[in-house]
Amino acid sequence: MIDFEALFKVSYGLYIVSSGNKNKGNGFISNTIFQVTSEPARFSACCNKNNYTAQFIQKTGAFSVSVLHKDTSPDIFGRFGYNSGKDFNKMEGMQVKFGETGVPIVLNDAIAFLECRVVQTFDVGTHLLFIGELVQSGILDDTLEPITYLDYRQVKKGVAPKNAPTYVDQSKLEKKVSGSAFKKFKCTACGYIYDEAKEGKTFANLPDDWVCPVCGTPKEDFIEV
Amino acid sequence: MIDFEALFKVSYGLYIVSSGNKNKGNGFISNTIFQVTSEPARFSACCNKNNYTAQFIQKTGAFSVSVLHKDTSPDIFGRFGYNSGKDFNKMEGMQVKFGETGVPIVLNDAIAFLECRVVQTFDVGTHLLFIGELVQSGILDDTLEPITYLDYRQVKKGVAPKNAPTYVDQSKLEKKVSGSAFKKFKCTACGYIYDEAKEGKTFANLPDDWVCPVCGTPKEDFIEV
Repeated sequence: MIDFEALFKVSYGLYIVSSGNKNKGNGFISNTIFQVTSEPARFSACCNKNNYTAQFIQKTGAFSVSVLHKDTSPDIFGRFGYNSGKDFNKMEGMQVKFGETGVPIVLNDAIAFLECRVVQTFDVGTHLLFIGELVQSGILDDTLEPITYLDYRQVKKGVAPKNAPTYVDQSKLEKKVSGSAFKKFKCTACGYIYDEAKEGKTFANLPDDWVCPVCGTPKEDFIEV
Repeated sequence: MIDFEALFKVSYGLYIVSSGNKNKGNGFISNTIFQVTSEPARFSACCNKNNYTAQFIQKTGAFSVSVLHKDTSPDIFGRFGYNSGKDFNKMEGMQVKFGETGVPIVLNDAIAFLECRVVQTFDVGTHLLFIGELVQSGILDDTLEPITYLDYRQVKKGVAPKNAPTYVDQSKLEKKVSGSAFKKFKCTACGYIYDEAKEGKTFANLPDDWVCPVCGTPKEDFIEV
């Protein structure tokens, strides 16, 4: 038997993985960055094949990782996590520096960065595993803690986008039946749930200019669930 | 420039990865478990080629993952993290159940488990990446939180063993010069540092039967650093 709740006990951080160059770049929110060897220092980045950034990584043979902190702005998750760079330039207006390989490194809400040159690429089905050798790394802010995927789920109540390796179809999770009169409202963009019982305020009473704390979608684009 | 401190900003959980069968099994402490695809649910486990458990995973084509909680006993880290199964039977005396593939699943201090059948194996240099398809998973205790590698480093002051993908040679880290009269003592088995300044008690004043909180090594096997 597979209990999909068990999958949420695996710990991850949250990162912006970027690639491209000064003319055109792209990035996406990833939770699946991890070190695979210590000598030399190499990191694995897991990327959906449909992900626009995957094309940039394959073209340039390099990627950067920006480590996000616990109070990362919801705009960052909205911009890099729930939108495609095919539709707009995600790097526009961002604080970006360019690495030794030429890839953009997003500095907004980042406490550290890694820059890697791809040395191996593995096909694991819907996703590609890029193995990158570390060429540069640095601390940007040593006072803030890295955000974990658990923080994101518990505090920010975010859910993984469909392209994420850790996406779980909500119908697979056991339904928790509640006898309460409180209602829940779901963001149609990112799946964030506004739970009146937890928030202590009805959805109707939220101001009209209230937006989804995860992806910035307006209140009117929420549906009752 | 590579700042190795930046590598510690990447988040991981801590797990016992086990393999083998009812007659003979082994397990090791891993921090590099992560999901690579959602459909089907597949996980990557990174394992040093010299690691005894790697042989069992290759032989049986399966592995289990026990997710450890924040208050996991130091004995578990000592037994599975700083010792080799070549020297003694790590499974002896442990609470173990056997999975659908026959591999042992360690239940001590575990809050959830995953069992995977290996579908791909990639050579990434010193380590192997085993890609396993989920065959079974479950929650064992939903009241406790998973331990992160950061908890382990900050609270338990543990360091990665030499075989770990995230091992960092201490000499690569910038030396923080301290003018204090407090001393530091290092566990010769696992590298744990007893820092008098942080503990508020001199090492000499610790009782004689005091042991390393990470791996259980006796006080007499510490050296001043």
